Amino acid sequence: MSIPAKAYAAFDPHSPLVPWEIARRDPGPHDVQLQILYCGVCHSDLHQARNEWKNTIYPCVPGHEIVGRVVAVGEKVTRFKVGDLAGVGCMVDSCGHCDACASGEEQYCSEGFVGTYNGRGPGSENTYGGYSQVIVVKESFVLHIKHPEKDLAAVAPLLCAGITTYSPLRHWKVGPGKRVGIVGLGGLGHMAVKLAHAMGAHVVLFTTSPAKTADAKRLGADEVCISKDPEQMARYREQLDFILDTVAAPHRLDDYLQLLKRDGTLTLVGAPSEPHPSPAVFNLLFRRRSLAGSLIGGIRETQEMLDFCAEHGIVSDIELIPIDYINTAYERMLRSDVKYRFVIDIAASLK
Amino acid sequence: MSIPAKAYAAFDPHSPLVPWEIARRDPGPHDVQLQILYCGVCHSDLHQARNEWKNTIYPCVPGHEIVGRVVAVGEKVTRFKVGDLAGVGCMVDSCGHCDACASGEEQYCSEGFVGTYNGRGPGSENTYGGYSQVIVVKESFVLHIKHPEKDLAAVAPLLCAGITTYSPLRHWKVGPGKRVGIVGLGGLGHMAVKLAHAMGAHVVLFTTSPAKTADAKRLGADEVCISKDPEQMARYREQLDFILDTVAAPHRLDDYLQLLKRDGTLTLVGAPSEPHPSPAVFNLLFRRRSLAGSLIGGIRETQEMLDFCAEHGIVSDIELIPIDYINTAYERMLRSDVKYRFVIDIAASLK
Repeated sequence: MSIPAKAYAAFDPHSPLVPWEIARRDPGPHDVQLQILYCGVCHSDLHQARNEWKNTIYPCVPGHEIVGRVVAVGEKVTRFKVGDLAGVGCMVDSCGHCDACASGEEQYCSEGFVGTYNGRGPGSENTYGGYSQVIVVKESFVLHIKHPEKDLAAVAPLLCAGITTYSPLRHWKVGPGKRVGIVGLGGLGHMAVKLAHAMGAHVVLFTTSPAKTADAKRLGADEVCISKDPEQMARYREQLDFILDTVAAPHRLDDYLQLLKRDGTLTLVGAPSEPHPSPAVFNLLFRRRSLAGSLIGGIRETQEMLDFCAEHGIVSDIELIPIDYINTAYERMLRSDVKYRFVIDIAASLK
Repeated sequence: MSIPAKAYAAFDPHSPLVPWEIARRDPGPHDVQLQILYCGVCHSDLHQARNEWKNTIYPCVPGHEIVGRVVAVGEKVTRFKVGDLAGVGCMVDSCGHCDACASGEEQYCSEGFVGTYNGRGPGSENTYGGYSQVIVVKESFVLHIKHPEKDLAAVAPLLCAGITTYSPLRHWKVGPGKRVGIVGLGGLGHMAVKLAHAMGAHVVLFTTSPAKTADAKRLGADEVCISKDPEQMARYREQLDFILDTVAAPHRLDDYLQLLKRDGTLTLVGAPSEPHPSPAVFNLLFRRRSLAGSLIGGIRETQEMLDFCAEHGIVSDIELIPIDYINTAYERMLRSDVKYRFVIDIAASLK
């Protein structure tokens, strides 16, 4: 017995995604079965579909910004019932016993967490993501969604873009009295601006595009700095407590390190395919600055983020698309031609 | 009126240091006048004498690891009296009112601290360092020395090599229960091993030279890893809480980032003339690791370090030299041919 589910999959690095059918496992005692309603489109989906990280297992069904409705639960499931709204993010399992897992930071599992797609699930098969009608996930990796139902599509990107920016903002204690820089206004950057603003920080958005100024302010930025303009950049030297850099393309980190106060941290959440130019050690030494990285967030923190967003009325700015638009969406995403996240209307378009 | 003092100076980047005579200011109300007894030889002295940082003001009298005896004090001086042993490190002044100075971290003064040599002192003249018989320094930048008098020569390097390693070890909370890596066993590295050991940490020394193993253990290392050997390096993957990297020559930081646990920090205290190869962002992202820098330490912390060393019987391992050996010492320092710091016997050889 297993559950058939329509899906979209990449079969090799160079061809478009096409319709396919997968089988989901029957829910075990601890599993939750979701009928998927919406799935956000993350840049990782494109990297993975095209094997840009050299580890893709084909066929590949991407998607890790999933919201849906619970349609079945295993007998040991206590926190979800049929009819609940629920979400699944980037992870569906982890070792459960390493120091990171014990601390609720499964994203740093020392054995490696099981990705929602292109991961190795129970029994070692490949995992398939949210570009599909159904998903079955261990209860402990399923999130509650408290937003109103009308917002559901725009909630989906919180499961990756939201937590990826929320977690470092919290870890480095962004809040009232702090001056925070956000680099880049894309899928991650626009969430970072909203979240840092809601946390009470003074937010400076750095972008290469003067055209994004008005939108950045609408999203919550107190100031916008055009990063191509050395005079504007000079105004922020040693002015910021923390900078979250969401730009994955290689760029000069020194430009941002210099903007940090003493003991400030520049945290990267994007992974460039080519390395950034090496930062000057003097920029680290002279104000005891740090360059750090952060990866998504743990399950407990993801729930905290979802609750924070529900409470503050925060969702992603999205463009809702049918699933047969996905290949066009990838091309537009490569041109940054989306404000600010594509979300696939799975229920309406995958039949 | 001013105080004549014999000294050694560099007059251009390519000639050896030669005897010279300088004039020290008469002590003002807040000044302490020291008869210099010993001065350590820091790699910075050589960089500065040879204009390798492109900012040397000639003539240049190096030396910022100074110990001596107080021979005169200004009328407002309260913490020193004639006859006291005292030390002077890398700084002789700072703005005094910026956030860093207000926090007692003058090394991060936002206007830039005044270096003990090659700095701009009161009245804007160039400052001259410890390769001289006498120095006159503002009381607030003079340190008390509580070590026994027989140890004085070996105390000198604490004023730079000591505080440069002590400060980051304290800032990143090295102590019992922590596994700490020290990279490099030179002037800074050998102090870092002694200090981290005295702080109660488990210390792993990384060196390219198997010949240094026994010495590293004598100095306090619990383990020694030969960093050229990938098998030995692999044993420490994700094993260390903190790594202090004292090597200034360009090298692969990724080799050490991979050895850090989740939330671990690799802190650099050396400034390479060419950049290190750019670290892989994945090594930062996947365990939320940080790459940081640290610069000497503040005056309050320098006193704390000196007191800690006096209490724990910690001094530098030195080779005592007369001042006319300085040019030979520089050549040997370039070959790492010193265990582990040259100290000039100023009182005995500069007459």
